[in-house]
Parts: sequence; structure tokens; C-alpha cells
Amino acid sequence: MNQIGEFNLIQKYFENRSQPESSHLVLGIGDDAAVTAVPSGKQLVSTMDTLIAGRHFPIKTHPSDIAYKSLAVNVSDLCAMGADPAWFLLSLSLPEADEEFLRSFADGLFEAANQFGICLIGGDTCKGPTSVSIQATGLVEEGCFITRRNAKPGDTIYVSGVIGSAALGLELINLGFEEEETLPFRQALNRPNPRTDLIPLIRDYATASIDISDGLIADLGHILERSQVGATIHAEKIPVPLPIRDESLLGKALTGGDDYQLVFCVGQDHKAELENRIKQQALDIAQIGEITEKGYSLQSGEQVIDLTTMKGFEHFG
Amino acid sequence: MNQIGEFNLIQKYFENRSQPESSHLVLGIGDDAAVTAVPSGKQLVSTMDTLIAGRHFPIKTHPSDIAYKSLAVNVSDLCAMGADPAWFLLSLSLPEADEEFLRSFADGLFEAANQFGICLIGGDTCKGPTSVSIQATGLVEEGCFITRRNAKPGDTIYVSGVIGSAALGLELINLGFEEEETLPFRQALNRPNPRTDLIPLIRDYATASIDISDGLIADLGHILERSQVGATIHAEKIPVPLPIRDESLLGKALTGGDDYQLVFCVGQDHKAELENRIKQQALDIAQIGEITEKGYSLQSGEQVIDLTTMKGFEHFG
Repeated sequence: MNQIGEFNLIQKYFENRSQPESSHLVLGIGDDAAVTAVPSGKQLVSTMDTLIAGRHFPIKTHPSDIAYKSLAVNVSDLCAMGADPAWFLLSLSLPEADEEFLRSFADGLFEAANQFGICLIGGDTCKGPTSVSIQATGLVEEGCFITRRNAKPGDTIYVSGVIGSAALGLELINLGFEEEETLPFRQALNRPNPRTDLIPLIRDYATASIDISDGLIADLGHILERSQVGATIHAEKIPVPLPIRDESLLGKALTGGDDYQLVFCVGQDHKAELENRIKQQALDIAQIGEITEKGYSLQSGEQVIDLTTMKGFEHFG
Repeated sequence: MNQIGEFNLIQKYFENRSQPESSHLVLGIGDDAAVTAVPSGKQLVSTMDTLIAGRHFPIKTHPSDIAYKSLAVNVSDLCAMGADPAWFLLSLSLPEADEEFLRSFADGLFEAANQFGICLIGGDTCKGPTSVSIQATGLVEEGCFITRRNAKPGDTIYVSGVIGSAALGLELINLGFEEEETLPFRQALNRPNPRTDLIPLIRDYATASIDISDGLIADLGHILERSQVGATIHAEKIPVPLPIRDESLLGKALTGGDDYQLVFCVGQDHKAELENRIKQQALDIAQIGEITEKGYSLQSGEQVIDLTTMKGFEHFG
């Protein structure tokens, strides 16, 4: 699919931009396909996510934020796997060749690419409802990727950052808030920052790991399902943004998606070492619970809530 | 983006299907990302194309045909580059979780995957206007990929197969024809077969190569632009389907897209060897013209038509 109109747009907005140095790139944008080389001993970690206007971001989201978020959610999957971001392809669908949109979109895209250390190598543009598909590839040493599968009873469950900011941001946008003090929450929704800084730590310590896109309960639930284990989490240990300290908002932190923080499990054998590293480097990582043989529950003071019947954000729900 | 609804749909329709054996696959569907290994000495060839309902295929196209075509157009890019298909990721957007659609779509997808020798390793599904994004990866020996860039004056221009069938198919569908005798043309549109059989030949002989997605003139034009050369093509040598022998329909063969045949250039040093191979193997490959220093023209009998101002199918035209 090599349309002339598409071709010119790609040249104008996506070729010859300042990008992270890539030692892997052999042939970039401008042919039927891109060519890359993989250092021997490395394996490829590949993910692909589509973001659709009105579904994955509010319709009025700024084009640069749409681009930023689209790349961020893909890079976040690489972080969860412990893979170093390497390159990505983009497929952008727009109702019309809106050059203002394209300029701003490209700016946000390359800002994110430089931020995350990942290089655009190819893709296409086409006419259609606004949506962005990105396929991102990362690299790991052979066998050193982390999956959802190896959590064991007795593992400690950790989360990075603060959980619920993006869900709060979405609510504030929907309620029409545009005050300066709500900006951090709107930013959390529109410009999530995948935890590339934690990639080595995930690789070194995690038995299982996932990024929080659909909400803490749902995503940790995926680890439990794939690892065939249970979990207990402690409500008061979940790091939430200040407004959520109001208990009525705790649900946002548990079921709100789009934070792109990491939830991961660490075995007893590595726990002391990890705790040391957290302290030394002042990392924003918190213990929130334990992996158990079975069951899935939330302890909140005296109360124990069964989570096995709760669900996160369902796409075709 | 790991939604539970999505997760179940992927498990139900896309996991554990019969697929080509892949020696590259380390971790498939069901985690944040897939993991693959690349044999040393091989380079990766990566392409990504999105197909949108009503734009790249008629709205009423059968779901199995939508899937088949979506994979075919991506594999076709790999063929043009001389790369052996290896694996792909899929992002499928649907207005609702229509299980009948999904069942048929998955059937067409795996039929194509087995036909083309390429393995589904991951992706996502989401709610939105019907569209299909596929990112396909192929492998080549280091440096042995073919681009659009190295055509030289004096090269002979070849095309594979018959050109214009898909465009005729689209016209017949739009006119409401459903007769048995028009089936081959509708098939050409809905189930294009990328020329995986010609991959070794492209690698061995082509100086430049591209697949015909936007029409012969536009796509050959991309080779000319990237190689900084011109071309003369001979109307009577273009292999067209029988109904197009009527000269008024020749435009379809020249500007009609969606054939996914290959157009490629071969230097004088390899021409005799290629001609031998075409004869011995009875390949459907025809000489249609020559690469020149500059200009771009079509000779039709005594008439010479300047093609430099013609354009193929433009996306944002």
C-alpha cells in the first residue's frame, strides 16, 4: 500500500526527523519495508496496540498527546517484559490530510520517541476514522525477558509510581475541569510515561510483571491467571494520588486504567536486595501485597473484599 | 492494553490455531508482548499496513476475505523486498464483539498464514470502526534485501502475473455483478495472492522491486523516483486479463491498484539467466519495458503518452 499522497505526507512529517541513534537500523522509511539487524544473542520482544479516538483518548485530545500516548502504551509493554526499546512502526488513520494535525502529531511522536529511546522505522498513513496503530520492538539478552507466568506463592507484589492519576484525569476532563491544579491528572492521562527507568530492575528481580493499562485489579489478575496463583493486596499500601485518599475514590486506583505503571512480583530470595536498591536509589516502588496459593482478595482495615468476581475495563463488555 | 474481553476473544479465536511451524517463536500470544529469536546472519524486514472498511475493501466483503487480504498485502511487501515471511502481529478493530465475524475472520487469517508460511505471534483487538492493522516481518541474509533504489538505465522492466484483475473485480462488484464468470476478478480483489513463489528470484536477479498496490504506473513511479531514473513501458506487452484487451479498459491495468503482483528491474548482466529460468519454470513473468536515463512514457502503437504527470491512487488526493 504505497500511495503517493501517503508517500508525500510521510516524507514531509516523518522522514529525516531527529531520532535516537539506532545501531540496528539498516534501511528506514521510504521503501516497501524497513530493514533492521539484531545483535547476536539478543531476542526480540514485539507488541502492537491500537488507540482509537473517543475510545482510548478523549476526542478533543491534542494531536501531540495522541501520538505521545500511542507510543507510550506500546513502550510500556516492553518495560513490563524487561526489554530495551529498539524500534517501532506506525500506522496512522485520519479522516483527511489535516496538515496541522500531522505536524503536531509528528512533534509529539518524536518527542516521545526521543524520551523513550525508540526509533521510527516505517509504517503507513491512510484515510479513515482517527486511529493510531503502533508496533514496537524491544531487545533482551536471550531468555532474559519477564512474562506473566512465573509468580509463586510467597512472592511480594510491588507497584511503581502512583495508581489512579489517569482515571482521575479522565474524570476531571469529562467534568470539564481545566484548572491549573488539575493539570497533573490530565497529564497522567494524556502523556503517560512508561517506566523505561525500571527495565533493568524488572529484568533483575521480577518473577512476573505486567503494566497497568486496564486497572490494578484486572492487570494483576492476568498475572494470577497465567501463573496459576492467588493474591492478597492491602488497600492502605496502594500508592494513590492525594485526592484519592478519600476512600470513596479508591475504586479509581483499583479499576481505573491508563496509568502505565508496573505491577510485579519478587521472590523471597531477591526481596532484600530489591528493598536495598529501592532505598538507595529512592525509587517510587511500593509493596502492596503477597502472592498466595489461590484466591484474590483486598484487605481494607478489618474488611476483606473478594476480587475474584471483579473485572477491569472490558473492551467488548 | 490488556483488556479482559479482548483477552478472552484472543484466546478463543486466535490462540492454539494450526499455524506454520516457526523456528523463531519463543513466546507467542498471551503476554504483554511476543518473543522471537533471529538466526545470526539474518536481517529483519518489517512492514505495516492498515486496511479500513469501505476504503481498502468493499464494506460487504466477507470477514474471511478481509483477513486474507489484510495479511496478503503485508506479505506482498515482504515479497517485493525479497524477504522470507516469518511472523506477524494483528490489531483488529470492530464495532462490537461479533463472534460470527471473528470466527470467519480467524479462519481466513489462518488460511492465509498457512498459505504464505507466516506465523501470528501477537496483537490486540479493540472496539472501533472496522479496520485491520498488520505488522509483518520477514528475514533475509545480511544485505540481500531488494529496495526501490538501484534500478539503472538499460535495466529491463518485468511484471509478474496479470495486471488489472483486481480493478476489474472492484468495478464488477460496484456494478452488482455476481455471476460465476466474474468470480475470478472478484477473487483477485478479495483474495490477492502475494508472490511468495518469486521471492528467491527477486533476490537473485532484481536491481529494484516493488509490489503493485496502487497501480502499475504509480508503483513503478516509486522505483523511478527512488532510483533517480526514467522508464519507457510498452502497452501491448502488459499482461492484462481478457476483458481488458478492449483498449478502453487498459487504464484499469495501468492505474488500478490491488493486484499485488511484482514489478521489478533486471540488469543486462542477469537478463539471459532470468529469461532461461522463466522459460524452464514456465513462470508468468513478462518484459514490459526498459529503464532509461529520464522521463516516464507509455508507448502504445505509434502513440507515446507522457506518464510524468499521471498519478496512481492517492490516499489524501
